[in-house]
Amino acid sequence: MDPTEPTETLDPADWPAMRALAHRAVDDAFDWLSTVRERPVWQPTPEAVVGQFHRPMPRAPEGAAAAYQDFLDWVLPYPMGNVHPRFWAWYMGNGTPFAAIGDFLAAIVNPNMGGGNHVANHVEGQVVDWCKEIVGLPADAGGLLVSGGSVANLVALTVARNRATDCDVRAAGVRGLKAPLAFYASSEVHSCIQKALELLGLGSGALRKVPVDADYRIEPDALERMIRADRALGLIPACVIGTAGTINTGAVDDLEALARICRRERLWFHVDGAIGAVAALAPAQRQLLAGLEAADSVALDLHKWLHVPFEAGCALVRDRSAHRAAFALTPEYLEHTARGLASGPLWFSEFGPQLSRGFRALKVWLSFKEHGLDKFGRLIEQNIAQARELARLVREEPRLELMAPVVLNIVCFRFRPEGVAEAALNALNEELLIRLHESGIAAPSYTTLHGRYCLRAAIANHRTEPGDLRLMLDAVLDIGAALTAGSG
Amino acid sequence: MDPTEPTETLDPADWPAMRALAHRAVDDAFDWLSTVRERPVWQPTPEAVVGQFHRPMPRAPEGAAAAYQDFLDWVLPYPMGNVHPRFWAWYMGNGTPFAAIGDFLAAIVNPNMGGGNHVANHVEGQVVDWCKEIVGLPADAGGLLVSGGSVANLVALTVARNRATDCDVRAAGVRGLKAPLAFYASSEVHSCIQKALELLGLGSGALRKVPVDADYRIEPDALERMIRADRALGLIPACVIGTAGTINTGAVDDLEALARICRRERLWFHVDGAIGAVAALAPAQRQLLAGLEAADSVALDLHKWLHVPFEAGCALVRDRSAHRAAFALTPEYLEHTARGLASGPLWFSEFGPQLSRGFRALKVWLSFKEHGLDKFGRLIEQNIAQARELARLVREEPRLELMAPVVLNIVCFRFRPEGVAEAALNALNEELLIRLHESGIAAPSYTTLHGRYCLRAAIANHRTEPGDLRLMLDAVLDIGAALTAGSG
Repeated sequence: MDPTEPTETLDPADWPAMRALAHRAVDDAFDWLSTVRERPVWQPTPEAVVGQFHRPMPRAPEGAAAAYQDFLDWVLPYPMGNVHPRFWAWYMGNGTPFAAIGDFLAAIVNPNMGGGNHVANHVEGQVVDWCKEIVGLPADAGGLLVSGGSVANLVALTVARNRATDCDVRAAGVRGLKAPLAFYASSEVHSCIQKALELLGLGSGALRKVPVDADYRIEPDALERMIRADRALGLIPACVIGTAGTINTGAVDDLEALARICRRERLWFHVDGAIGAVAALAPAQRQLLAGLEAADSVALDLHKWLHVPFEAGCALVRDRSAHRAAFALTPEYLEHTARGLASGPLWFSEFGPQLSRGFRALKVWLSFKEHGLDKFGRLIEQNIAQARELARLVREEPRLELMAPVVLNIVCFRFRPEGVAEAALNALNEELLIRLHESGIAAPSYTTLHGRYCLRAAIANHRTEPGDLRLMLDAVLDIGAALTAGSG
Repeated sequence: MDPTEPTETLDPADWPAMRALAHRAVDDAFDWLSTVRERPVWQPTPEAVVGQFHRPMPRAPEGAAAAYQDFLDWVLPYPMGNVHPRFWAWYMGNGTPFAAIGDFLAAIVNPNMGGGNHVANHVEGQVVDWCKEIVGLPADAGGLLVSGGSVANLVALTVARNRATDCDVRAAGVRGLKAPLAFYASSEVHSCIQKALELLGLGSGALRKVPVDADYRIEPDALERMIRADRALGLIPACVIGTAGTINTGAVDDLEALARICRRERLWFHVDGAIGAVAALAPAQRQLLAGLEAADSVALDLHKWLHVPFEAGCALVRDRSAHRAAFALTPEYLEHTARGLASGPLWFSEFGPQLSRGFRALKVWLSFKEHGLDKFGRLIEQNIAQARELARLVREEPRLELMAPVVLNIVCFRFRPEGVAEAALNALNEELLIRLHESGIAAPSYTTLHGRYCLRAAIANHRTEPGDLRLMLDAVLDIGAALTAGSG
């Protein structure tokens, strides 16, 4: 190495210019976010813009200012729309400006949350403790922040798999088990549960889908019959997965009944609470969620109803040592020391699949402190009330049909004007939804219930105001009328 | 719902105040980051500060300003240290200020990168295409951004597992396979590979650790013998994992030799390139990495040597349809439409375990455009030259011992003064390292090679200057002298 040669760095040659660019980004972002209501929820990206993203990798520097300009020109104008007050598609949160500042600060400090002795791990430890408080798990439970519900469920089901028998599954693999494991969930269970069982080498065949009642809740008697039948076949029933808020309709399984069955049958009781478990923050919803506190493990999403920007989920496992035993692996280059950088009590990499981990805890910590958890509870109630109001408006309107009970904040409905045959309704409603998206007025999504295509509004939105619901329904009726004008 | 009741929101009641707070955060962050060299690399967190993180969840709002002040008081002063020019522990990047702005903007726009028709998916598509260019995989390969190397390896090995035989592993699980699968990697393989095989239900027993030569590279002949022996036992050899940059010493397996063996034996060829594959950007290192372009799959980290803030990794799979077939699952609430929000060509959730996904692509995209990839190549060369210089300084100093060849940017050495017995060196060097951390002067980490505890400097740092290496060694010698003063 020639010490006379100048050292290069990725730090700005001109710090004041980079600082000025950051201030500009703040102003542009706040201008954009505070006026989001004035713009369409969604619009397609022009082909010319899409074309910009098919260029080869930049070998030469473009500079920060030019790269930022490309962001302003090509990225900012064509968002997904989930920051908008009339976005109710799939199930997402909006984010908040303060949490975005948190992500900036997290990237500046940029710690690796896999382990080590630094304060950021305590921030995550506290956020995880708060999540235990929300769902009623004990303070000594295991837990870590993850990317979201899919990985939170994966982490919990890994522990359930490994604890199902005496077999050392980590060493011997699933083939070391005496018989196949069986996992039980309602037929409304989220697809990520199947993906998790596939990833874990158990196969989708290990997932027993239990029938649901008219309210889309698991039938406890059917569950018990299936467990008995599987035992009779020589299978090993391992785990019951209750859902606190199904993706299709927001149904909440009878968690107390499931907990009783799990205690009696000595099965792991996992709750997929990605959608609805945080409703435990709303006093009026606690009865609906009774039994959550009896879970062996819970999967939470914080980027949904708590509006932390993507990504933020949380996996909680009552038995901390079982949780750690499923993931800890400490080779010589990761051994902990008694003091120094490599010491400390919190090594989150020993509780999940990631070794390097980002400081997503900061945005959660800042956000919870900013607003206080009681306010999140009130906002959850507000969305539930809005969903009930939407259901009322749908029921009042003869051309609309409510398709499922509204328990939490998900409303499934369809346009069903007189004179259109049932067989034509699916295609009609699908086209109607697409045109609604294209109108930019509102963005619900869709599902199919008993073969019937529905529009589906999942109101997890802290920006929605009462008039927004009426705006969507008026647009649905207008578009529906236009679509059926020829055939009516 | 009472429409006369005011609607609550998480948006600021006072937008200008929140904007001012964001500007303050920018100034504080830039003041902090641009002066990082003036502070200790690391220091322990005072117990009084740790105590702040054991308070119950905040039910009442504290407000953004107060929460931010807590960040300034309790979090910012006690970082991990990996933004510092003399942090060379484990294997991490530093981050950059512009990429941190990128994370702020990503959280403001806050799209869900699981799928849908919005421009952010094209940003990720382009970044993944650039990653293919870096390693030499074809443009039609599959790929997605993930949290880091651990999950990138997990994604790739999932595809390898599922493609090993005709068995539909997603449906039948690992028990559906006719015989156990065998995966081969060097004895220096990163622990995340074992964790991945455990998670996948294959068990750590499925990992065959192949002996290495004196340069810590896999022995191809030994590999071939092990494959033959496993076949003779009725096992199914499935995959060879080459390492481009081992965690202990930075060794790069002979990827061409491994590729040849995989072709001949019809095995999946995966490369864990988390540490070293991006060195393909440095023309002088391409020969070392020859064979990388022949891989069936590659795992990359972008938050290591490319200095994107945590988290950013990339999983690449040559056969895009095999990649998708391992993860795609499209229930009724996720079906794609022809137009509207739920259309579009890029559904990254069909290529990995997450459904909801954050916009980590933005910081990568901005960062690559800001600097151009050639500059990253030069910075990689600069770190390699620094590592060689450090090795030279170690060799020159009689009280220090170089413990492994320096191929890339990892230097393993120990303090070995005259008159100290070999048996005492491990404890001596461990205490020395802790005191070095406590001094705040420099932060290498540690490993154990052939039973010998080493200090280990992984120089993936765009802020390191030549004089920093000398500073560390002087501190090592001073602390070592103090520790041996009584016994000398």
